[in-house]
Amino acid sequence: MDDSFVSRNQLRLTCKGAHVVVHAAEKHAAAMSVPQCIAVVDPGGHLLAFSRMDGARIGSIEIALTKARTAATRLQRSGDVGGTSDSGKVSIALASQLNLTGMAGGIPIVVEGQVLGAVGVSSGKAEQDVEVGEAGIAALLDG
Amino acid sequence: MDDSFVSRNQLRLTCKGAHVVVHAAEKHAAAMSVPQCIAVVDPGGHLLAFSRMDGARIGSIEIALTKARTAATRLQRSGDVGGTSDSGKVSIALASQLNLTGMAGGIPIVVEGQVLGAVGVSSGKAEQDVEVGEAGIAALLDG
Amino acid sequence: MDDSFVSRNQLRLTCKGAHVVVHAAEKHAAAMSVPQCIAVVDPGGHLLAFSRMDGARIGSIEIALTKARTAATRLQRSGDVGGTSDSGKVSIALASQLNLTGMAGGIPIVVEGQVLGAVGVSSGKAEQDVEVGEAGIAALLDG
Amino acid sequence: MDDSFVSRNQLRLTCKGAHVVVHAAEKHAAAMSVPQCIAVVDPGGHLLAFSRMDGARIGSIEIALTKARTAATRLQRSGDVGGTSDSGKVSIALASQLNLTGMAGGIPIVVEGQVLGAVGVSSGKAEQDVEVGEAGIAALLDG
Repeated sequence: MDDSFVSRNQLRLTCKGAHVVVHAAEKHAAAMSVPQCIAVVDPGGHLLAFSRMDGARIGSIEIALTKARTAATRLQRSGDVGGTSDSGKVSIALASQLNLTGMAGGIPIVVEGQVLGAVGVSSGKAEQDVEVGEAGIAALLDG
Repeated sequence: MDDSFVSRNQLRLTCKGAHVVVHAAEKHAAAMSVPQCIAVVDPGGHLLAFSRMDGARIGSIEIALTKARTAATRLQRSGDVGGTSDSGKVSIALASQLNLTGMAGGIPIVVEGQVLGAVGVSSGKAEQDVEVGEAGIAALLDG
Repeated sequence: MDDSFVSRNQLRLTCKGAHVVVHAAEKHAAAMSVPQCIAVVDPGGHLLAFSRMDGARIGSIEIALTKARTAATRLQRSGDVGGTSDSGKVSIALASQLNLTGMAGGIPIVVEGQVLGAVGVSSGKAEQDVEVGEAGIAALLDG
Repeated sequence: MDDSFVSRNQLRLTCKGAHVVVHAAEKHAAAMSVPQCIAVVDPGGHLLAFSRMDGARIGSIEIALTKARTAATRLQRSGDVGGTSDSGKVSIALASQLNLTGMAGGIPIVVEGQVLGAVGVSSGKAEQDVEVGEAGIAALLDG
């Protein structure tokens, strides 16, 4: 087979790696006393691991999933999707049939320059959601 | 079983309790001469009791349900969801795939510090919807 | 407040309890060499914890969630929903707007006679899915 | 205006009438010791009144609504929709985009030859659901 037909040496986040992200995010959220919904997805935006902490909102589950899906499939932080204008964010949500969001809290998991998926966090304030997601990824990279 | 696996002493709103909320809300709305759609849901946002008063709008049924679902699953008044900006409210509606709304009229039912569900009211003006929902909950707590 | 308006002494599955189910199910599936998608939901069918093991099918994620939601909200094993006939199972799936399934692999989590949620397992054969879910619940009850 | 442009002397089920149906159905279900979800809708299939009894399945809410909507908008018992064959019932569910079901438990409310809406009951066996719905309508007609 022609070498150009496949790309080799791709990285894939394991189930264990996904749980490291979730658990470190949970630990950080607990230290902040902000219970969270935390989702980790693969590059296709498909769920790998999830946890809803005691006290986190049921109404944040879907939002955590949407943030993670957005970061993974757009290859950027969900808060950057649709630019900085409200209309840009609304447009991308509508054009994606509500699969994407411009709300902050979804962060790509990047290892050696490859996006292996993303974490999405929801139930706190935007900056808290981001901080918790970053703590989860940091534990993966430092582990 | 390890004690940390379950949380005890949780309360659950009974069917009777849900009907008390609906009927008191209806009575209050009738006194205001504003026919309403009134929904009571459990903590997961699932319907317990509902009434559409004579003259209330068919087009308000779904909104009453969404307000109630929002207040129950976000653990806050629906009017507070998404903050005070239009863009915040639109964002959360879209990111939740239209399961949540930032419109006022959904109020959590809180007993002994636990959210047992919510009431959602729609067909009047925002402040009327809120007043009717509050009247429903007051009857439950005072009953 | 009138005593008949609320029911007391309800149990709630904690986040920790949900993870005990998921991890024990994973361990059992690993011993069987059958990678699985494992979901644990609350009584309203809302996600508490999830894991997709390495090698489990992306196309099984949604099915695991639907099995868990079915067992939790129907208060019975998903394989018993819709009876034993194909037509009964199809009817209930359609009438529930695809929120329910009659496929085996969803099992209620029952503690002291209360349904605290359910586990849903998908990616193996039906009997393997059930066995893995049962192993998860057994770890919770025996823990 | 030409007399042929409007049809006069139409009947409309009031909110009070809808609650009579729900409460009588609840009472009958309680006597049978089968907790039920009970929905009453108008001729457009839009919700008028609803009750989920203690112990009735969350996973039956949507089905009760679908049965009621079917009976009201098809002007016949939901169990008769799609004929007696499985394929007929599946076909009508699919062609209606899952708005209709051929499952028994939805019964039109007929007064003086006019269909004023329907009751839909779900959470028991098919014959129990039908019996409870009939008891609700009987209370309306005999009231």
